[in-house]
Amino acid sequence: MSETRALASYVVTGRWADIPADVQHEARRALVNYVGCALGGARDEAVELALRALAPFSGPPTAAVLGRDERLDPLHASLMNGISSHVDDFDDTTPQNYIHPTSPVASAMLAYASANRVTGRDFLNAFVLGFEAESRVGNAVYPAHYDVGWHITGSAGIFGAAAAIGRLRRLSEQQMVWALGLAATQAAGLREMFGSMGKAFHPGRAAQNGYASAILAETGFTAGERGIEGPRGFAAVQSAKYDLSKVTAGLGVDFNLRRNTYKPYPCGIVNHPTIEGAIELHRKYAIKASDIAAVRLQVAPLVLDLCNQQGITKGLQGKFSVYHGAAVGLVRGQAGLDEYTDAAVNDPAVKRVRECVTAAGDPALTEDQARIEVELTDGQRHSWFVEQSLGNIHRPLSDRQLDDKFRNCADRVLPASAANAVLDSCWRIAELDDVSALVDATVPAVQRA
Amino acid sequence: MSETRALASYVVTGRWADIPADVQHEARRALVNYVGCALGGARDEAVELALRALAPFSGPPTAAVLGRDERLDPLHASLMNGISSHVDDFDDTTPQNYIHPTSPVASAMLAYASANRVTGRDFLNAFVLGFEAESRVGNAVYPAHYDVGWHITGSAGIFGAAAAIGRLRRLSEQQMVWALGLAATQAAGLREMFGSMGKAFHPGRAAQNGYASAILAETGFTAGERGIEGPRGFAAVQSAKYDLSKVTAGLGVDFNLRRNTYKPYPCGIVNHPTIEGAIELHRKYAIKASDIAAVRLQVAPLVLDLCNQQGITKGLQGKFSVYHGAAVGLVRGQAGLDEYTDAAVNDPAVKRVRECVTAAGDPALTEDQARIEVELTDGQRHSWFVEQSLGNIHRPLSDRQLDDKFRNCADRVLPASAANAVLDSCWRIAELDDVSALVDATVPAVQRA
Repeated sequence: MSETRALASYVVTGRWADIPADVQHEARRALVNYVGCALGGARDEAVELALRALAPFSGPPTAAVLGRDERLDPLHASLMNGISSHVDDFDDTTPQNYIHPTSPVASAMLAYASANRVTGRDFLNAFVLGFEAESRVGNAVYPAHYDVGWHITGSAGIFGAAAAIGRLRRLSEQQMVWALGLAATQAAGLREMFGSMGKAFHPGRAAQNGYASAILAETGFTAGERGIEGPRGFAAVQSAKYDLSKVTAGLGVDFNLRRNTYKPYPCGIVNHPTIEGAIELHRKYAIKASDIAAVRLQVAPLVLDLCNQQGITKGLQGKFSVYHGAAVGLVRGQAGLDEYTDAAVNDPAVKRVRECVTAAGDPALTEDQARIEVELTDGQRHSWFVEQSLGNIHRPLSDRQLDDKFRNCADRVLPASAANAVLDSCWRIAELDDVSALVDATVPAVQRA
Repeated sequence: MSETRALASYVVTGRWADIPADVQHEARRALVNYVGCALGGARDEAVELALRALAPFSGPPTAAVLGRDERLDPLHASLMNGISSHVDDFDDTTPQNYIHPTSPVASAMLAYASANRVTGRDFLNAFVLGFEAESRVGNAVYPAHYDVGWHITGSAGIFGAAAAIGRLRRLSEQQMVWALGLAATQAAGLREMFGSMGKAFHPGRAAQNGYASAILAETGFTAGERGIEGPRGFAAVQSAKYDLSKVTAGLGVDFNLRRNTYKPYPCGIVNHPTIEGAIELHRKYAIKASDIAAVRLQVAPLVLDLCNQQGITKGLQGKFSVYHGAAVGLVRGQAGLDEYTDAAVNDPAVKRVRECVTAAGDPALTEDQARIEVELTDGQRHSWFVEQSLGNIHRPLSDRQLDDKFRNCADRVLPASAANAVLDSCWRIAELDDVSALVDATVPAVQRA
């Protein structure tokens, strides 16, 4: 059986009861993390502009947009959810393939569930299956596909959205083959967009186009039947090297959700050990910003490849500056969304400390490690070594830490009581008769009414 | 200046008065050919299914769909126009890069012009500029990009739609840079879809997504600024070899419309010499189908690579069968849309003759040549050699032949008087104050009213 058909067959038949309890729980954790990120990003300029441009083209407004008052057709709502959930670079990812996997899938699913009755169990089951579909397609082409310049969150993400929406629509195997084919032929997203709004556009468009793939296939709109593995299919065309066995090996047994990770800080993941060390020093020694004379970092060499931005003035640049990460950790003792605004980057105290930071690459360190030393104006020195940074696969955020992250993000659009109600609904989603209640609860106007 | 910015600069400044008269005329020819193809395909099952799936998501119905009664928002109308105009494989193309260039550009533009007032001159000017943009991007990556499996009509076509709509919206240079970047990051379409509805979906989605790229950029939604030439931009990611100088060389002087060609028959272009020879024999010798005992073809070897389908039962397969082309030419003396339906493929007389056809590759023949010999039941033999088939760049369809093709296609949805009125509007488009009148005239309901 072809890989496309085997994957389609699994997606249309996989049952909630057959998903192991730990994977079921990880699906809830991914949802909590995702909804928090979408609320945190809901008022970002990228979302505002996309709404201004595209809301005039929206169909009947049957779907809520997460964290916003506007209602749109579900395809456009998928796009907006995708942008808001990824725009802060705070959503989940995995070093296995560097997909941000929840955004393309859940962005489409919550738009769908806002407009159509879906039970919590059906929702979570389809989510796990969609997550598997995109992860397996991504695993098959990673790393060559990512290395050449594809933003794999867009290009692989669309398979997850098509699979999940197709599952909710109860497609037949043949329809799912076409849905995956239509996803393959729309797979897109270039890393050249990094640093622009185009990056967050990718999971949004993947959600929207994956959704459309499923409903086109449902009507009988045909696609090539070997969209993933054909000689001119996704893998062959979009990756110099690939291993199709990864699409199907261990289907139903080996779940990619087990390798998902959640970020404690909304910035490039390789900055995380430095930030953690800086926060530790801030807390342990109650360091005053004005006393800092010098900060010395030792980090994995890759950090200086990816996050070496200096002389910065924009919040978005701060996400890719290890110097800024060290500075906010030392000055503010935290690195949440508020530390990656334009205002935070231009905060005089943060700026002064950031300019005191020097960094050296040390090949003996892993990307989960960092050494940070602070020298004070009186000559005192304090240092800290982070052995394995919080949020990596071996030291994941706890459920309570995910709660804190959620509240920190949701705080931007919802009062605390409303945020807690949404959070509670996310954890209890498997008990919900209709997921639209969860989506509605994220809408500020509903909270005001 | 970067290639993306140089192209953007040209597109936002290029003037109708600076386009040479022969290119202006070729733009009208491309429009005539395009509108005819869109009318011919307007009732195809692929359009019906796409409408069934997606019309429920349409925004305010401000745009007509060519050749149909439904009105949709302009983005969805762009998609439908793109499907109908390409589904018969009858639209224009060029051996320079094998893009079907008018569909992605004009599909978006006629949807836009249906919903917004556009003069005929502004329309044609933007069309020429969009045609240039997609052709130049395509030329830069052809042939490696096409050879690996990209359907270049989708992947390059989106640049043309973004450029043309961006020009009609009067984008600034900076906005056009973003529009081209957003086009680059959505460029898609796999040849694995050939033989399915996915193929015609490509120019439709390119039109729709290119249009969206322009209006997003207009609001200030940002993209990477080197979408075409950046290290992780379109050319580097989607083509093993490319020549960026082709994006800008001779801008404003060398027009790709001069190399555009129009098909006399709605099928794989390499079948055309065989069909022409068969029609000549039918006419010259008044051959009766029942008298045919054998048909022998000598063709360029590539024909047997691309169009060797035998034992066929579907109209779509007939498009890629040189045997079917010979049979309909001999039996019916023509090869129009009616010769590529399921019914025509299963017509007993056509089927019998098709099964009498044998073909041999001859490396001495070009792809514009064919030799055909017919042996009758009484032993008589007639043969014909096609030196250079009609429709190629050296023997283009005349304006009158384009008229005939248009009428043959439009006949499927419009009465003759209405078809002639649309045809007249296409030739006189530069005189129109508002192109929406042309679009409205293609709507059957308008004709009935």
